[in-house]
Amino acid sequence: MVVKVYGKAQAVCPQRVMHCLVEKGVPFELVHVDIDTMEHKRPEFLQKQPFGQVPYIVDGDLELFESRAIVRYLAAKYEDRGPNLLGRTLEERAKVDQWLDVEAINYNPWAFPIVFNLFVLPIRGLPANKADAGAAVDKLNKVLEVYEKQLSKTKYLAGDEFTLADLTHIPATRYIVENCGLSHLLDDKKHVKTWWEDITGRPAWKKVMSFVETGGSNYSP
Amino acid sequence: MVVKVYGKAQAVCPQRVMHCLVEKGVPFELVHVDIDTMEHKRPEFLQKQPFGQVPYIVDGDLELFESRAIVRYLAAKYEDRGPNLLGRTLEERAKVDQWLDVEAINYNPWAFPIVFNLFVLPIRGLPANKADAGAAVDKLNKVLEVYEKQLSKTKYLAGDEFTLADLTHIPATRYIVENCGLSHLLDDKKHVKTWWEDITGRPAWKKVMSFVETGGSNYSP
Repeated sequence: MVVKVYGKAQAVCPQRVMHCLVEKGVPFELVHVDIDTMEHKRPEFLQKQPFGQVPYIVDGDLELFESRAIVRYLAAKYEDRGPNLLGRTLEERAKVDQWLDVEAINYNPWAFPIVFNLFVLPIRGLPANKADAGAAVDKLNKVLEVYEKQLSKTKYLAGDEFTLADLTHIPATRYIVENCGLSHLLDDKKHVKTWWEDITGRPAWKKVMSFVETGGSNYSP
Repeated sequence: MVVKVYGKAQAVCPQRVMHCLVEKGVPFELVHVDIDTMEHKRPEFLQKQPFGQVPYIVDGDLELFESRAIVRYLAAKYEDRGPNLLGRTLEERAKVDQWLDVEAINYNPWAFPIVFNLFVLPIRGLPANKADAGAAVDKLNKVLEVYEKQLSKTKYLAGDEFTLADLTHIPATRYIVENCGLSHLLDDKKHVKTWWEDITGRPAWKKVMSFVETGGSNYSP
């Protein structure tokens, strides 16, 4: 039985999980959850993901939610397949964990309201909170200034190898760059720009984008 | 050389790290960072923790920040000492990771504004945003309703053993219960109440509280 990913192809957190699966060459099925009709808030869905968020996965007997926990699990399960995404020593893993938490705690809280207000609400024809978005842009820019400094010292956030710490940033940041008119936030920072081109140029990420664009539901390497 | 924890004894995130060290019986030195005079925003501090937050630790050659990454590191380094805090199998670890992320992503974003507005600002004599706090209380209560359901199935969040997933909740929740007049949020939920009494009754947590109250700077088991 292949891994089942319950979510919507265009949503940020399911893309994070799909990217990890493609990096590891693991086949999966994307089971569509209709966020637009609030399927993720219905009782059947809440039994699997009690906070009403996508995605959750089913892998054999294991049901799991929270996209960052899912990618940690997949990277550990398939540690010996494809690129090492976790770090090899205790210290390397600690740095990966550190930057994974930076993404969750210091980056995503600003990235999310930007994407929500400048992309998600407008395509639904709903009014955006431009003040919230503007404040978040300023905060995110400050975070990216820290990244610029870090990426002047190491090729990737947690060291000289691509890891989950980089991977988790990609889906939301792509919307910020491509759909929110904010590519300058990355382009005006030399090392961030090089990093961004590198991580989004990965064959696995390109496969995810193609899978999403063609409305795929079953992925096999 | 003992582990050095840079932070303030009363702050939530350093307490999370100290609790993990005490559970594992690891000696440490708490190096006071004077948050009240904004020491954590000065250039010397920002070289160690670029987001200007406490704590960071120094353990031999390793410097690390983000409290949840630090406790993951310590729990892995001292896996064979004291209680297992990480889970033993891939699947158990995945569940611990899941609930660790729930704390960081679904719980803390409401717990933080409650503690900040109803405890931190008032003791500094500064005006609080009561509307923000009220909204956060409603959101946190909904999260605790999910916990109530989970804790009716398992003794602790991630299963039948105390893990990092429980530990990370304690410091902020203690302020909510003891200093924000909101103990009813836990008391009116049978399984949450039992869980709370259990996890705060742990000898290691009591030692942390005593260390904080007596202004300790060096801990040895």
